[in-house]
Amino acid sequence: MIMEKGISSVEVLPSKSSQVTAVKVVVKEPETKQTQRGKRVGFVLVHAGAGYHSESKAKEYKHVCKRACQKAIEKLQAGALATDAVTAALIELEDSPFTNAGMGSNLNLLGEIECDASIMDGKSLNFGAVGALSGIKNPVSVANRLLCEGQKGKLSAGRIPPCFLVGEGAFRWAVDHGIPACPPGIMATRFSLAAFKRNKRKLELAEKVETDLIQLKKRRQSNEKGSRVMCRTCGRPSKANDGSRGGDQIELYSLENDSGTLDTVGAVVVDQEGNVAAAVSSGGLALKHPGRVGQAALYGCGCWAENTGARTPYSTAVSTSGCGEHLVRTILARECSCALQTEDAHQALLETMQNKFIGSPFLANEDGVLGGVIVLRSCRCSAEPELSQEKPTLLVEFLWSHTTESMCVGYMSAQDGKAKTHISRLPPGAVAGQSVAIEGGVCRLESPES
Amino acid sequence: MIMEKGISSVEVLPSKSSQVTAVKVVVKEPETKQTQRGKRVGFVLVHAGAGYHSESKAKEYKHVCKRACQKAIEKLQAGALATDAVTAALIELEDSPFTNAGMGSNLNLLGEIECDASIMDGKSLNFGAVGALSGIKNPVSVANRLLCEGQKGKLSAGRIPPCFLVGEGAFRWAVDHGIPACPPGIMATRFSLAAFKRNKRKLELAEKVETDLIQLKKRRQSNEKGSRVMCRTCGRPSKANDGSRGGDQIELYSLENDSGTLDTVGAVVVDQEGNVAAAVSSGGLALKHPGRVGQAALYGCGCWAENTGARTPYSTAVSTSGCGEHLVRTILARECSCALQTEDAHQALLETMQNKFIGSPFLANEDGVLGGVIVLRSCRCSAEPELSQEKPTLLVEFLWSHTTESMCVGYMSAQDGKAKTHISRLPPGAVAGQSVAIEGGVCRLESPES
Repeated sequence: MIMEKGISSVEVLPSKSSQVTAVKVVVKEPETKQTQRGKRVGFVLVHAGAGYHSESKAKEYKHVCKRACQKAIEKLQAGALATDAVTAALIELEDSPFTNAGMGSNLNLLGEIECDASIMDGKSLNFGAVGALSGIKNPVSVANRLLCEGQKGKLSAGRIPPCFLVGEGAFRWAVDHGIPACPPGIMATRFSLAAFKRNKRKLELAEKVETDLIQLKKRRQSNEKGSRVMCRTCGRPSKANDGSRGGDQIELYSLENDSGTLDTVGAVVVDQEGNVAAAVSSGGLALKHPGRVGQAALYGCGCWAENTGARTPYSTAVSTSGCGEHLVRTILARECSCALQTEDAHQALLETMQNKFIGSPFLANEDGVLGGVIVLRSCRCSAEPELSQEKPTLLVEFLWSHTTESMCVGYMSAQDGKAKTHISRLPPGAVAGQSVAIEGGVCRLESPES
Repeated sequence: MIMEKGISSVEVLPSKSSQVTAVKVVVKEPETKQTQRGKRVGFVLVHAGAGYHSESKAKEYKHVCKRACQKAIEKLQAGALATDAVTAALIELEDSPFTNAGMGSNLNLLGEIECDASIMDGKSLNFGAVGALSGIKNPVSVANRLLCEGQKGKLSAGRIPPCFLVGEGAFRWAVDHGIPACPPGIMATRFSLAAFKRNKRKLELAEKVETDLIQLKKRRQSNEKGSRVMCRTCGRPSKANDGSRGGDQIELYSLENDSGTLDTVGAVVVDQEGNVAAAVSSGGLALKHPGRVGQAALYGCGCWAENTGARTPYSTAVSTSGCGEHLVRTILARECSCALQTEDAHQALLETMQNKFIGSPFLANEDGVLGGVIVLRSCRCSAEPELSQEKPTLLVEFLWSHTTESMCVGYMSAQDGKAKTHISRLPPGAVAGQSVAIEGGVCRLESPES
């Protein structure tokens, strides 16, 4: 639950399920010098990953979220587009060694960093994405540049500009477009290298057990009688099973997902014109296969932004985080955006996380469904009459929801002095992968021209 | 319109728009030796691309579609899974030098072949995909192997198996899983190399004109007066415009899209158990940037397959073709699948092509929206009582629709002696990119166990 400066009322919503914690936070912006007429407005919500964030590192996660919010707001105050503001927030998140994006990303099986990132502009509905990109410090910059180039229309000889580039081709395109290559070895940090070594050791042990089990199975089949294998961590004898990939013993060697390095960072922004943008960036899963591309690069899965239109009363922006394969197969970003067009944003998001994510038939065979989203929606209306003023305002509702142990978020409006941050956690007793936490707030922004 | 052997009635549907040609074809399967009890059943629908298919090469396109159908049906008759049958069809389509997939794919800017392919299993809802893959003769085989490996559960040390691999990493994974590398130079054909050379020349000319125009613009700005530039194809003087990428003159050098090499091949299958599968494969756009990935690799965009479930009365399978960026931004395969859950499949697909593709707000800035789909849906029911028998049957409705000049399709049931093929064309006067053609049929299959 959020109880920070600047929040004037907290409404705890009745939970429909023991597995759900639902908190609604109403944020009233204090009157400051910055709310003067003519001051540019806007709002940003960022996340530093849905996963597990240890209390010991909470300060670092909150700090990077705070800085990311400030960068986006500085851009908005300077009159930048929503896409440029969301890119600025992402660059700050990527540059942190504590997040699994850009600098400090998880290393793949070969000890290399390959990043995914994407961005979507709610106004033009254009999209830019990179997958399995190496050698560029800020993958989101390449995604944003692809989006910008795509908006210029066709290339010479009527060629359609690409919106999604991967691997070496993406790297070449970036360098050709003036984005500097990052010298080798810069992006791996002391933390990510240490985690890689520990994970590689675990993998070797797990594969050794697997080999032992396969040999054991063969002996069993030939002898037609049972046998036992020693567990390599606890030393106790344990029954071999017939799982095609080694069975339960292997779980003893499951890779660590270090605090904060689980997956993905992201941001959603609404600018003074009411235009929305969303972006996402990820180093992917630890020890992933080279060339593996996750949700952060995939249209509809990693982020979504859509301005209000004929069939959409609200502008919506969404960024996702968590297990890439789960987020891809549920096309979760777009699914959330569609759901947010109904009246009650909180209820719509909760139902989406319960029915279209945890309860999705596309993930029916998964043990647990791990992910998180940040969303915002905005409209130029007065949804809460008691707060209405004569001036037209931009109503921004923002929410975050996750099925992982925790999710670190930060948010700020252009009228704020500083960002607010929060580590959201599942309630005690809730099971990660099977429960949903959901929180958020409402922010009313004055139109600069009002 | 289809008027081939095996089709007993053709119903021309009233067109709601002058831009639409809508033909419904009802296919009654003739009683043959192959409809005996115990014979395995199933149905396949394939396409060799939505684009422009010249009359002069019509025979080749039809022939490869026919062979692809036969390969799938042979697999189904041998009791293979729907995914294996659809893979067999795709391999045949990829191996043809006339299609833009596998062998004979379009070459990219560097003269290399980089392929995209994906497959989806309606039963498990699993998905496998590769993007920007070089050096493998049949990209769909790698996608299918990724799908199969994904169904085996987690990898050692609890790692999540990848469902989407790109570039060099995808190649390495394929070779490590026993899929042979293709020797360099084998996949480019005489046709594709000749088209590459012609396109490169056009690109050079277009870029020369663009450079001239930029210089002209600079001179204009400094002189503050108009000027003229000579058109390099017709030799006539023409006004330069201020388009940031060279303007209308460039269109004179637009790349050719050779007959049949526009984009993508695909197939949809239903097997004897009623399980559906869909697959798609593409060499991508001519002279694409290296690393560019199109709809054929992207979840929800290139193909979709979903067995009947609690919320889905019909099993559906979809495969798309056309301009990758258009198909991605509309997530067209999944959109069609969702629409097909309403009663009238023909009307649902027509509305989807009109409202969610041509009329999509995501493509509002495009001159023309180019694409095509093949779809099938099936259920174990008796939708047309006059045809009902005492035995339970599998009702299969199949359709194809395109906004391109033409689309080449083939279809066959396990009860057929041979496949039927057809080149569907927009009606005279219809404008490619703005009009929809839609045709299809109904096929009733006896259950083998009935």
